[in-house]
Amino acid sequence: MTSDVRVEKAQRFGKLHDGSMLLALPNVWEVAGARIFEEAGFEAIGTTSRGVAASMGYPDGEAMSRDEMLEVVARIVNGVSIPVSADMEAGYGETPEEVAKTGAGVLSAGAVGINIEDGRNIVGERKSAELRDQSLQIEKIQALREVASSEGVPLVINARTDAYWLEVGDPAKRLDLAIDRGNAYRQAGADCVFVPGVTDAETIAKLVQGIDGPINILAVKDSPSLPELQDLGVARVSVGSGPYRATLALLTAIGNELKQVGTYTSFTESALRYGELIHALTREGEEHIDYPSE
Amino acid sequence: MTSDVRVEKAQRFGKLHDGSMLLALPNVWEVAGARIFEEAGFEAIGTTSRGVAASMGYPDGEAMSRDEMLEVVARIVNGVSIPVSADMEAGYGETPEEVAKTGAGVLSAGAVGINIEDGRNIVGERKSAELRDQSLQIEKIQALREVASSEGVPLVINARTDAYWLEVGDPAKRLDLAIDRGNAYRQAGADCVFVPGVTDAETIAKLVQGIDGPINILAVKDSPSLPELQDLGVARVSVGSGPYRATLALLTAIGNELKQVGTYTSFTESALRYGELIHALTREGEEHIDYPSE
Repeated sequence: MTSDVRVEKAQRFGKLHDGSMLLALPNVWEVAGARIFEEAGFEAIGTTSRGVAASMGYPDGEAMSRDEMLEVVARIVNGVSIPVSADMEAGYGETPEEVAKTGAGVLSAGAVGINIEDGRNIVGERKSAELRDQSLQIEKIQALREVASSEGVPLVINARTDAYWLEVGDPAKRLDLAIDRGNAYRQAGADCVFVPGVTDAETIAKLVQGIDGPINILAVKDSPSLPELQDLGVARVSVGSGPYRATLALLTAIGNELKQVGTYTSFTESALRYGELIHALTREGEEHIDYPSE
Repeated sequence: MTSDVRVEKAQRFGKLHDGSMLLALPNVWEVAGARIFEEAGFEAIGTTSRGVAASMGYPDGEAMSRDEMLEVVARIVNGVSIPVSADMEAGYGETPEEVAKTGAGVLSAGAVGINIEDGRNIVGERKSAELRDQSLQIEKIQALREVASSEGVPLVINARTDAYWLEVGDPAKRLDLAIDRGNAYRQAGADCVFVPGVTDAETIAKLVQGIDGPINILAVKDSPSLPELQDLGVARVSVGSGPYRATLALLTAIGNELKQVGTYTSFTESALRYGELIHALTREGEEHIDYPSE
């Protein structure tokens, strides 16, 4: 990707956060799926670290290496024309220098947005979860901004606070914690603040009011609809690993039907036909060969 | 994988073709899906070249390199304990020597089965399809058998003939063509003959009768059920890219609902929960950390 294209894409992606229209951002883990969302008319997509990791056999939590994650990001970027934001978990590094390397890698991969999260899970249970040190997190966000500026790309930094997601500390203080973190990250150079784990309209409204900047909400089972979230002032809604986990539920149903009944309806009643798959993989102006194959 | 484990797995996989019980072989393209089918109780899995290629942004037909395909095969092998058969399209090579390299790569990746197909599509349309030269195809299968023997692994060679799949030549002569190809491949050292594109019970019965060896049928929309295929004497049934294309149809539905309605039921009504996903990725005896994340 030329530098100009990257800058244009980053600018275009940034403008989608201006609040004039809610940005719905589906999260993907592979290329054909990315193409399908592009074809459906989405103006940008994000990756899901959990989806990418699980599809390659890794647990989440940066068990997969930064380079492997960036390879997948690059493949997805190359597969679509719309801007791609990379979910890079906590930035793959304990220091601002290491996180800056991650930022440089994201830019090299051609992505124009990045997620960086502040959650940490000490002994593997939610109740012992905590947020990473705030001042270090600020330095990491500043490091991302600096590396992007040095390359002349207005990288869209989506700073995630896991106050709700990891159910950190006293529930009564969680709103203030999320707002404080969000504003600190905005001041450090983040473009958008991502607060997953919040589904009630009242709290979402308070976050929108309390945080000075665009807010990203994660859509889950009980989340308000996109029109409702737009009315609440939310700027961006992503779906995380939900669609990925839905495909795994479908595979579970396919496996059970095949194993227990010996029939195929779970995968034959609704499947992209070969031609549709080829269409999904073929971008405008490209040739394709209709080679039928397993 | 130690050599002993590989030999044991290959023997185990070979025995599943002995006709005593129909072998149902789901095809996968990524690791969590492979784990899900293993958990569902399948005794072996295959890969789908089309699924692997599309998920990485490539069209089918060996557009993806052999090494990239083998990387995915190795990840899947490492993710499960059951035998894995690798769909290597036409063997990634025009000569027996090149196909032998592919066979060696499959063994290095830890797979204990391989698919090799004889279809060729000249100008991108089914009606102009033809089968590759039979004597060269025989040499390629012999080359696979030789490389496997030299490594002491009873690699399960599934020789595919595309007579029906590519609708080759005169329909009235197709059955004889498939039977001739099948028997030639068996004599060359194939363990099983794969004839995709056949769904009617009568033709399947004739293939079983005419080909001296185990037969693999591809399950599609109108295929007889597994119990019916077992009664017809079929040894192995695979599903090709059907499940993969079903997941893409689900993503299409998710995208359309999100874009047009702004709601989430397509991915929230049925999705693997985080805990289930972690369980699917955790093998017996392994530790896992329940780190909730997007």
